[in-house]
Amino acid sequence: MKPVLGTCYYPEHWPEHKWREDAKRMAELGLTLIRLGEFSWSTLEPEPGQYEWAWLDAAIDVLGAEGLQVVLGTPTATPPRWMLDRHLDMLAVDENGAVRKFGSRRQYCFSHTAYRQDAAAIAGLMAERYADSPYLHSWQIDNEYGCHDTVVSYSAVAQAEFRVWLQQKYGTISALNDAWGNVFWSMEYQHFEQIELPNLTVTEPNPSHVLDFRRFSSDQVVNFNQAQVNAIRQHSDKPLIHNYMGRITEFDHYKVGDDLDIASWDSYPLGFLVDRSGAEPDWQRRFERQGDPDFQALHHDLYRHVGRGRWWVMEQQPGPVNWAPFNPAPLPGMVRLWTLEAVAHHAEAVCYFRWRQAPFAQEQMHAGLLRPDSSESLSFKEVEQALADIQQLGDVQVSQAEVALVFDYESCWAWETQPQGQGFDAFAIVFEFYKALRRLGLNVDVVRPDMESFDDYKLVLVPGLFCLTESLNAKLASHKGLNMLGPRTGSRDENFHISQPLPPAVEGLECVVDHVETFPPTSARPLSNGGNVHTWYECLQTSANVLETLQTGEPVLIGNGNTHYLGAWPDTEALNRIIQGLAEKAGLVIELMPEGVRKRDCLSHEFIFNYNAQAVSFRGEQIEAAGVRMFPK
Amino acid sequence: MKPVLGTCYYPEHWPEHKWREDAKRMAELGLTLIRLGEFSWSTLEPEPGQYEWAWLDAAIDVLGAEGLQVVLGTPTATPPRWMLDRHLDMLAVDENGAVRKFGSRRQYCFSHTAYRQDAAAIAGLMAERYADSPYLHSWQIDNEYGCHDTVVSYSAVAQAEFRVWLQQKYGTISALNDAWGNVFWSMEYQHFEQIELPNLTVTEPNPSHVLDFRRFSSDQVVNFNQAQVNAIRQHSDKPLIHNYMGRITEFDHYKVGDDLDIASWDSYPLGFLVDRSGAEPDWQRRFERQGDPDFQALHHDLYRHVGRGRWWVMEQQPGPVNWAPFNPAPLPGMVRLWTLEAVAHHAEAVCYFRWRQAPFAQEQMHAGLLRPDSSESLSFKEVEQALADIQQLGDVQVSQAEVALVFDYESCWAWETQPQGQGFDAFAIVFEFYKALRRLGLNVDVVRPDMESFDDYKLVLVPGLFCLTESLNAKLASHKGLNMLGPRTGSRDENFHISQPLPPAVEGLECVVDHVETFPPTSARPLSNGGNVHTWYECLQTSANVLETLQTGEPVLIGNGNTHYLGAWPDTEALNRIIQGLAEKAGLVIELMPEGVRKRDCLSHEFIFNYNAQAVSFRGEQIEAAGVRMFPK
Amino acid sequence: MKPVLGTCYYPEHWPEHKWREDAKRMAELGLTLIRLGEFSWSTLEPEPGQYEWAWLDAAIDVLGAEGLQVVLGTPTATPPRWMLDRHLDMLAVDENGAVRKFGSRRQYCFSHTAYRQDAAAIAGLMAERYADSPYLHSWQIDNEYGCHDTVVSYSAVAQAEFRVWLQQKYGTISALNDAWGNVFWSMEYQHFEQIELPNLTVTEPNPSHVLDFRRFSSDQVVNFNQAQVNAIRQHSDKPLIHNYMGRITEFDHYKVGDDLDIASWDSYPLGFLVDRSGAEPDWQRRFERQGDPDFQALHHDLYRHVGRGRWWVMEQQPGPVNWAPFNPAPLPGMVRLWTLEAVAHHAEAVCYFRWRQAPFAQEQMHAGLLRPDSSESLSFKEVEQALADIQQLGDVQVSQAEVALVFDYESCWAWETQPQGQGFDAFAIVFEFYKALRRLGLNVDVVRPDMESFDDYKLVLVPGLFCLTESLNAKLASHKGLNMLGPRTGSRDENFHISQPLPPAVEGLECVVDHVETFPPTSARPLSNGGNVHTWYECLQTSANVLETLQTGEPVLIGNGNTHYLGAWPDTEALNRIIQGLAEKAGLVIELMPEGVRKRDCLSHEFIFNYNAQAVSFRGEQIEAAGVRMFPK
Repeated sequence: MKPVLGTCYYPEHWPEHKWREDAKRMAELGLTLIRLGEFSWSTLEPEPGQYEWAWLDAAIDVLGAEGLQVVLGTPTATPPRWMLDRHLDMLAVDENGAVRKFGSRRQYCFSHTAYRQDAAAIAGLMAERYADSPYLHSWQIDNEYGCHDTVVSYSAVAQAEFRVWLQQKYGTISALNDAWGNVFWSMEYQHFEQIELPNLTVTEPNPSHVLDFRRFSSDQVVNFNQAQVNAIRQHSDKPLIHNYMGRITEFDHYKVGDDLDIASWDSYPLGFLVDRSGAEPDWQRRFERQGDPDFQALHHDLYRHVGRGRWWVMEQQPGPVNWAPFNPAPLPGMVRLWTLEAVAHHAEAVCYFRWRQAPFAQEQMHAGLLRPDSSESLSFKEVEQALADIQQLGDVQVSQAEVALVFDYESCWAWETQPQGQGFDAFAIVFEFYKALRRLGLNVDVVRPDMESFDDYKLVLVPGLFCLTESLNAKLASHKGLNMLGPRTGSRDENFHISQPLPPAVEGLECVVDHVETFPPTSARPLSNGGNVHTWYECLQTSANVLETLQTGEPVLIGNGNTHYLGAWPDTEALNRIIQGLAEKAGLVIELMPEGVRKRDCLSHEFIFNYNAQAVSFRGEQIEAAGVRMFPK
Repeated sequence: MKPVLGTCYYPEHWPEHKWREDAKRMAELGLTLIRLGEFSWSTLEPEPGQYEWAWLDAAIDVLGAEGLQVVLGTPTATPPRWMLDRHLDMLAVDENGAVRKFGSRRQYCFSHTAYRQDAAAIAGLMAERYADSPYLHSWQIDNEYGCHDTVVSYSAVAQAEFRVWLQQKYGTISALNDAWGNVFWSMEYQHFEQIELPNLTVTEPNPSHVLDFRRFSSDQVVNFNQAQVNAIRQHSDKPLIHNYMGRITEFDHYKVGDDLDIASWDSYPLGFLVDRSGAEPDWQRRFERQGDPDFQALHHDLYRHVGRGRWWVMEQQPGPVNWAPFNPAPLPGMVRLWTLEAVAHHAEAVCYFRWRQAPFAQEQMHAGLLRPDSSESLSFKEVEQALADIQQLGDVQVSQAEVALVFDYESCWAWETQPQGQGFDAFAIVFEFYKALRRLGLNVDVVRPDMESFDDYKLVLVPGLFCLTESLNAKLASHKGLNMLGPRTGSRDENFHISQPLPPAVEGLECVVDHVETFPPTSARPLSNGGNVHTWYECLQTSANVLETLQTGEPVLIGNGNTHYLGAWPDTEALNRIIQGLAEKAGLVIELMPEGVRKRDCLSHEFIFNYNAQAVSFRGEQIEAAGVRMFPK
Repeated sequence: MKPVLGTCYYPEHWPEHKWREDAKRMAELGLTLIRLGEFSWSTLEPEPGQYEWAWLDAAIDVLGAEGLQVVLGTPTATPPRWMLDRHLDMLAVDENGAVRKFGSRRQYCFSHTAYRQDAAAIAGLMAERYADSPYLHSWQIDNEYGCHDTVVSYSAVAQAEFRVWLQQKYGTISALNDAWGNVFWSMEYQHFEQIELPNLTVTEPNPSHVLDFRRFSSDQVVNFNQAQVNAIRQHSDKPLIHNYMGRITEFDHYKVGDDLDIASWDSYPLGFLVDRSGAEPDWQRRFERQGDPDFQALHHDLYRHVGRGRWWVMEQQPGPVNWAPFNPAPLPGMVRLWTLEAVAHHAEAVCYFRWRQAPFAQEQMHAGLLRPDSSESLSFKEVEQALADIQQLGDVQVSQAEVALVFDYESCWAWETQPQGQGFDAFAIVFEFYKALRRLGLNVDVVRPDMESFDDYKLVLVPGLFCLTESLNAKLASHKGLNMLGPRTGSRDENFHISQPLPPAVEGLECVVDHVETFPPTSARPLSNGGNVHTWYECLQTSANVLETLQTGEPVLIGNGNTHYLGAWPDTEALNRIIQGLAEKAGLVIELMPEGVRKRDCLSHEFIFNYNAQAVSFRGEQIEAAGVRMFPK
């Protein structure tokens, strides 16, 4: 596959006379994909039912005339102000009960079915009009589902739909009372109409109640997306894409992805470092102009799976952004590095957000390839360099990874609902496992727990999984490679009850968790072999082989044959050792990477990336700050 | 008195066929008291007016058949969902105006008189049915009043009742305006219907207004409790109990206790250490699996007074809990230690919460004596040990303490309303005085300010008391023993005006506070004799003897004869010295206890408890971690 | 000019028989101005339309009989409870939508036009009654506009008035859409009635929308004030005053001041140090009983400008206050120092708040010159000393400052709306510039950006100015003295769009900001000449002379001839060097002041103030803690 580059463009923001010059410069630079339209509803339909397609027709034609292909976005993330007059109750409501007002974006509640229909309708009209455009490459549906905490809404329409969803799931109210354990604290319901959303309760609500509400909320995103999928597919067979946002875990991306052709995500390494990586202050300082060395790769590997092999970076940060608590500029070279890293993880396309910095409105401090006056910003030259690099690379062919790391959205919701100790977080623990694998120079697939087979993998890691289904338990038991589950994996059944037989009921391992302890990082407990466990510790009663213990003797890692269970959250030192041990036992070829240096191995090439702000010696060679090495095979 | 042990049991959570086996195991273990029923309203009355007593009859019979006695709880802390349909306005409202929704527990507003009647009615029906049961030991009314911040409610019904309460208190609106000083900032009212609850004001509301609202809120708990007391007493003469929760200070426990026969409290040493002890991080780390060495004892000594000598631990933590920010497991031995410590403070009974861990709903991560699959958890063996210890002890007879430490609920409300400097807290300062006394190996009585006489005490300490009534002032003046008041004691009259003559108007001490200073701990001021004062400092103008001064010469502790006044908040070093000096002057026999080691002296025995996680040398002997020494006299 | 002293007095708080004695003691002490009336509405008009003037007549007569002059306050900051019955919708609403309830003060929304009329009416009635009193000195309108965050209100009346304001400003909705850039995110409106207030949006609202709302909110204060100005001027020609509160920046004080005769402010150095100075903990500890050495002076120099030369301290802290997180007492000598410092900055009057400490209501812990029992508090003697000092001084004549420091309210609103990095704050950066100037012993004028001419100044500093108007740009270009703009100065046009040509478009400097970086203080970047830049950094592309660079070579300070631009926020070391360099280049006579020692140079005298808590050596002489030196010329 030969990757291509593109950009996000807003013809509606600029006078028409600039479009031709812009298109020319895009083409001259070597970009081929132009995303547009995704926030343009008020321009396309300034009054309800009064459509203005002419400007978009013209913009597409101008771009197409320069040989550019268009990714057309449905504008449903930004319903115009008049939509509110049609649907007074369409606004999302936050957990404190405050209506989320018009005046920015993503204000709609996913449970508003009439808005969902209106959204599908505009998508259908666009599809009808542009399906046959020779310049149309693909469709983007909506924009960044879940950004700004918009999946979970406590609106009246959400409550009504939730009751319907529960009725469909449980059939009778007594089935629901049983599943939730509502006999506890006299929480039993007599009919579905009594059930409210689980916010603003006196103390914590029933976790089963919360988890069902989170599942429902995720399903509403799937439904919303499907409505547009169906509307577009009536007219167009071009690929359907959504651009997911980094570390948004409030809905099930796998399920949304099942209805689409390509997955994409929006990669803002510097904003994410501050806002979402969870990094310690020292680490943030060290990588403040480069981003976390593993955060982007994790998402690349996740969305490759969500897209069943087909994935893009839809928005790539090209300079400082406007939205993080602090917004430094990328170190020179990083825009190129980020681009080539996506390529190394087999992205089909990388699009920069945005072509030209807008001098007005919310994102006026968000850099583009051009400055507001159309002069080139510093990143322009880096994109030229990335294009030259890609030209030189030729075809990039992906390798089958030998390690699978299971990541599960439901587990994120479950442990947010019941952390049991501050800091237990399903994404965070997966991210730490991922870092430990990457330190060994390994390719990783981030995969869903219900994937068909793990047979392609020599090592499967399943940390923090909420519910260990019979099916997954069986697949792992029959899997030839090594696996390690835990901590906390399989500790609940699907109703959010403690599993019985008691966890971890892993096939092939006799073991019971007597109880769990949580404690702050300052109370970390030392391991016999070095390092500590922190945050989470399970008191294991087991007859299996004990592979790691606390200094006080209690088992922490146990294993029989291929199967391992880890009963605590190890710190970096200990996790590195444990995962290295497993990798070696699994027969993987490892290469210890220097801190901040990362490798991606493809069938066609080997890539080395230096995320450090200074040169690093690797394999006896100096790699400059933000440097990239590409070795054809 | 010979103490007994028990447990909390929820037959409604388990299939009936398990009850007999459970009862058998309880009896075999040696437990004698079983609390049940306190959250079972939806099972007892699944539809309004349709009662299902059969299961409870059966459960009591099964327990009784094994020789167990039942403490029957009224289920009024958890009104079922249908109750909301009867009383749409019964929900409490938080200080931001948010209604506290159904879906957990304690959702009712104490001011809702119709709900209060319904609660009394179910209590009366239970009393009628079970008064004559041979297995009934006593009654628990409701559960943990005030837990989850539920005493103070800003609902419409609370506002209406508050106006009635004010009218009864003041008679005329001008009396209220005078008492509150409403001429200030033109806050004068013309009639009672204009008065709102003191939340959501632009800046702080009038402290007199707030304090009256806090008094009213406390009175509503007293009233709510009385309604059930009256309903039960019509049918039953068994003891009435409430289980207070640790460091809940929003209502007056003395007044609620006046209507009951036995006081009890729910002791969760590890959760409280993190959540409510106010301990510094180092201290928390040191005692994270043991709890604060004085926190439980303070409550024991308080509830002995609330119960006029009769008191229990109704819920004793047996393992990790689910509700603190971090939830470690008790160090081996601590469950036994906590049990025996209660015994040493003269508890009649200690009940473990709970018999078996529930695998569902909010408290699924709360340990029990049994694990969810009915196997024994680690604490089971410790309870066996505690029972053997108690067996060996025989009768435990309480001694009269020689020190009284005055603790007052109204002062808590007053200084929350007007801290004047961050960190001034009535409970916290009493707790620090308590620690200093316990360091000297002294028995302490925690007492109410209006207790009849202090004549039994050689030393009386009165820190941070809001209002020094004439009666208390006179009692202290005529008291033969030593006393020390302050800081801040008596600085306001009952209307929350600065007292005149100016504070501290302590009989026998000529002294005026010119002004008060508050400052952060980092600005602590050194004393001439060592240590510092922090947080609170009073500029004293006095002709009394000066016993402690700042290094800059200003008086801090003054005294004439038996009477002392302390004009600042000393740090641990200084407070230890000051209190040791007083104790010696009072002729008390003191024994300096090592840190984390505590003594309780009874007529019949002497007890030593080692809260440390390592062995400690005491009186030339080693006491192991979590060790207990019991010496019969 | 010969300054005078006064106090704030509340006859309505005290029995009438105390008034005469109070008046006598005030006069004996040497006070001449007594402010009264400003919170007395409920006493003046206890029922709507029923006026009680007699007590105020009597109080004024009693004071006047002792030779005292009265500053009469309109009571409009505290509308009585009955006002709410007339105007149910008059209450302000906070940004979360919560109504700000009656029960303290300042509860009214500035946009409520009927309340505005009622406020003007009571002011007019007072003016009519007292205009001819021989004892009337002047009028204070309302009290501390904006205190307790009361300028910006999200009420329904504010929304309605905002729409009117927008219609008047923009005429057509399409003009507004263009000015705000509403094409972005489909935020376009079709008519003004669709526009809501910019709170509770999903993510940040459009900054142009917010800034217009902030301008509107400020204008409502101006309008509210004007209504009373007009009502009073119909009857009285005595001076009109408002007492501004420290570091309140939510409305434009210059514009309110344009309608008044004298500016005054309320100076609480200790409360402000903790609450509003932004000082680091070490600095706070060092000056905890003295206040920040520059905070008061900055306000003095600002309000001298707001009052066009005529200004007072209306409320001077005389002891501990009640409202800061911590409330220490002033170091002995500081009350005198603060008084004389105001005099040195050319205050006409300094009034102490308050005469006697009130023993009731919200401010019962706020010190007065007298204690609640009418005995003298410690500050009484300091006021005697200050009066003696002033007597000795004779006439104090102000000098023309040689440095102007531009401070702009709109910039405060703009950068709150769009900080781009945590910590960017228009007041804070001006305050740091002010400190650097004062360290050089310079007199400073704090001035508005639209002042007529800068010709009187040898040095003009313009940091962080939102919008560089053509007029200001031209004035600076033609100005003979030196000037330095930046950082961030002129980076937006008045619509909150990035200026084009790109910033900084300073006449005479060829320079473009390619992009901006923000970073936390821990990521400060070192300068070649020492010190660092922090928080804010602009990547300058320039052909001008480079005067300061980062260690990595990038320009930070550039200049051509008289004109300089600073592209970052320097730390204290660097800012001191830069400003000292400019001052020297501008030919100013500088004298390096020791830390905590400050100078004020008048035509008639030179004043030296030692804010330190210990003696300091200056010019070879020891100045005691809290010491003042006054040298007549």
